[in-house]
Amino acid sequence: MSTKTEIDFEKLPGYRWYENGQSAFSGPLFQLFHRLDRLFLTWAAECRAREHHFPPFIPAKALAKLDYFRSFPHLITFPVTLDASEENLKQFGEGTPMNEKGEIQLTATAPIRDVITPAACYHFYHFFQGEHFEQPAYLTTRAHCFRRESHYLPLQRQWSFSMREIVCIGSSEEVKAFLASYQERLSRFFEKLGLPVVWKDASDPFFNPSQNPKYLLQKLAPVKQEMVFEDRLAIGSVNFHRNYFGEAFGIQREGSEAFSGCVAFGLERWIYLFLTHFGPNESDWPALESE
Amino acid sequence: MSTKTEIDFEKLPGYRWYENGQSAFSGPLFQLFHRLDRLFLTWAAECRAREHHFPPFIPAKALAKLDYFRSFPHLITFPVTLDASEENLKQFGEGTPMNEKGEIQLTATAPIRDVITPAACYHFYHFFQGEHFEQPAYLTTRAHCFRRESHYLPLQRQWSFSMREIVCIGSSEEVKAFLASYQERLSRFFEKLGLPVVWKDASDPFFNPSQNPKYLLQKLAPVKQEMVFEDRLAIGSVNFHRNYFGEAFGIQREGSEAFSGCVAFGLERWIYLFLTHFGPNESDWPALESE
Repeated sequence: MSTKTEIDFEKLPGYRWYENGQSAFSGPLFQLFHRLDRLFLTWAAECRAREHHFPPFIPAKALAKLDYFRSFPHLITFPVTLDASEENLKQFGEGTPMNEKGEIQLTATAPIRDVITPAACYHFYHFFQGEHFEQPAYLTTRAHCFRRESHYLPLQRQWSFSMREIVCIGSSEEVKAFLASYQERLSRFFEKLGLPVVWKDASDPFFNPSQNPKYLLQKLAPVKQEMVFEDRLAIGSVNFHRNYFGEAFGIQREGSEAFSGCVAFGLERWIYLFLTHFGPNESDWPALESE
Repeated sequence: MSTKTEIDFEKLPGYRWYENGQSAFSGPLFQLFHRLDRLFLTWAAECRAREHHFPPFIPAKALAKLDYFRSFPHLITFPVTLDASEENLKQFGEGTPMNEKGEIQLTATAPIRDVITPAACYHFYHFFQGEHFEQPAYLTTRAHCFRRESHYLPLQRQWSFSMREIVCIGSSEEVKAFLASYQERLSRFFEKLGLPVVWKDASDPFFNPSQNPKYLLQKLAPVKQEMVFEDRLAIGSVNFHRNYFGEAFGIQREGSEAFSGCVAFGLERWIYLFLTHFGPNESDWPALESE
């Protein structure tokens, strides 16, 4: 299917694209960003999800439990600081900290123990490590997420982007019911607004997938369904993690390893959908259920 | 002056301190975070500040214009990714990506061209590079800001924290009037709530300050006044930048280099003030002007 509107990002009011693969917003797009997030929060409130605000970094130790470094090394961004000795800092600052290509010339660095958040919901499993839940937990958070890619496209593929997630940690049945209910809810929303969004089986973007047993498992028994706009852009997904995080972080529900699942929304991609489908003018955008 | 309440961070409902120098919030503290930000936004609305949402990274080239790498090398956090060749990623993932101390063992890295946001308002000067303003610009943004420190303390000194800024770019007189008006406004607020906050001259935390002419200039003609809680913690500041950013980024106002100034609020430190001064119970916190 072809695009109805080609967005002219250079002329889009309140929009700025940076060559480092990130977007800035003000005016109507800033409002749209928050209108969409309030919509997602309205949906989150339907399961009484408790909202959390997490830090931008997650300890490397937490991601190591997920075999993350072998599965997704191509996506990771690390926060790196200089070794704090006065001599080293002087050498950095008084040498050539940036070359003529705008590239930083690091001197000695301090040990790296963190990763910049790659997915919003990872924080929950780390946060609830060792917890025994007597009831299913319904949770939500929004985070800047970071994924290095080979190329970037405004609003569609960014080094950093905003992700809202609604998460359930519970028994297998509780998580399945949670995901099914949101999938139905979202289908109704897409239909009501006449949006060309359909569900498609997908798998996570593993490095060297054919060599990774986790990828092969996902191909055999799909656990991720994406909301795909115009057959070309996933604006969100519904994910069944089985007991994967429950096992890795020792989280229990009813005396067994907890199951978990999440519904994830990429804010910038939803803005792209609105601009493409309804046009660049604020007055053409529909009212949302939350308004 | 001594602290009235010693906060027990381990038992504080909805709070989690991470050893990487960052905080997570839910429940009443999450609400307080947003109540405070709405208060700051109410103040920002008094000068009709336009709100912007900026990316988490700022190009190194922009900070180089400010001699940032020589002035603040000790504070910087760089976003670093691995060299994207398949061989390098394989070597990283299949080697020992993390040692027994939880430290990442990087293999070859990709060129570093960005810095993780050190201060919210820098984005504005970069954003408006080369602009000629026919009127003073009033702006606001909130950002996660990152400063590496030698040690961290919950809510008081963090590797990453949230900063709300209200900014004016204009003539010298316009910026001075903007800052004076907010300083007066804030003094009234502190008095009304009976908060032990006083204004103090301060200077930026330069590396090797005695060797830096910019530090010496700040000592001779103070341009930064901090809102200091109980004589020990700056919860915000009012900063007159003169034409420093206007010159560095070629921003003009009335045919000359623009002046600028900002009012900055550290959200986590305001939460600390509330917890220390009013106690840990939500019911003891005062209503805010915005409510």
